[in-house]
Amino acid sequence: MKLLEERIAREGRVLPGNIVKVDGFLNHRVDPKLLRACAKEFKAHFGGSPIDVIMTCEASGIPIATIAAEEFDVPMLFVKKAKSSNIGADVYTSEIKSFTYGKTVTLTCSRSWLHEGDRVLIIDDFMARGEAMRGLREIISAAGAALVGVGIAVEKGFQGGGDKLRADGVDCYSLAIIEQADENGIRFRE
Amino acid sequence: MKLLEERIAREGRVLPGNIVKVDGFLNHRVDPKLLRACAKEFKAHFGGSPIDVIMTCEASGIPIATIAAEEFDVPMLFVKKAKSSNIGADVYTSEIKSFTYGKTVTLTCSRSWLHEGDRVLIIDDFMARGEAMRGLREIISAAGAALVGVGIAVEKGFQGGGDKLRADGVDCYSLAIIEQADENGIRFRE
Repeated sequence: MKLLEERIAREGRVLPGNIVKVDGFLNHRVDPKLLRACAKEFKAHFGGSPIDVIMTCEASGIPIATIAAEEFDVPMLFVKKAKSSNIGADVYTSEIKSFTYGKTVTLTCSRSWLHEGDRVLIIDDFMARGEAMRGLREIISAAGAALVGVGIAVEKGFQGGGDKLRADGVDCYSLAIIEQADENGIRFRE
Repeated sequence: MKLLEERIAREGRVLPGNIVKVDGFLNHRVDPKLLRACAKEFKAHFGGSPIDVIMTCEASGIPIATIAAEEFDVPMLFVKKAKSSNIGADVYTSEIKSFTYGKTVTLTCSRSWLHEGDRVLIIDDFMARGEAMRGLREIISAAGAALVGVGIAVEKGFQGGGDKLRADGVDCYSLAIIEQADENGIRFRE
């Protein structure tokens, strides 16, 4: 999506270790207008398939998944990364490795809100190695739900998560795919 | 707000320890239509004052704050609860006690996105003792920003957080105030 690529090119910063910092508009301070434009793009791509629920991971996937859920007129379910006192025991879980936080994280989702046969669209702000996606897919499988597709705002193409999904037959649609991010700047996949 | 009270009465559950569970529509699975109605209510109440940014805490405040930010046409800034590798060192922090997670949590906000003179509206899904609010206000003060008000979807009136803010002169507007939640059910403040 041109609008998102331009925004990344203008405001994104590359930190050592190929980290792309877009925290001014996507994952710390967020721009709801940009999220709405992204959500409409997801709707144009995935809108032809019936979808029952949009799923994401806390925390930074939540803003874009919320706006997308409104666009699709379905509920948004966010999987938790920390065990709270009130989620209950009847949950699906999946262990993932978080590179951002440098530790293993247990994704947790109440069984009350994901059911057999549910058609799920995953929406997230970022994908790198695809660990969070692996965890979400594990939870969707455990519930007997069906994955319709994966919509990502910014994919770090050089870290392989998106291509792994595509090789696996998943409809993975990323609005901006960064092919290179280093001291020479940011280059997008054509 | 009648719509929210009715939803809580219909779908909310009370767990031991006066915990009110509304995870089917507010803070695990969320209903974007309900959030939009809440955001419009916040706009009707706070819309007369200039606002530069809407602030919330990750994670469950993010959905309602995102929709509200779109309603107010301002960015939404969510304060982080975990230290990620890419937030940087130039941050405001505040220690709060999380009752839900049973531990002390460090709220962290990049200095890049909150500035002196910014007029801030805090939006959150829930308020009990008001610990998160205390932390957010500390960060707003540290930045030299100004708190315009606090908008809450569900306030647990019997835990005092909201009344403490009001006694302090803060315009705290809650869409539903639960006065009692126990084996006899849920009773709202008139």
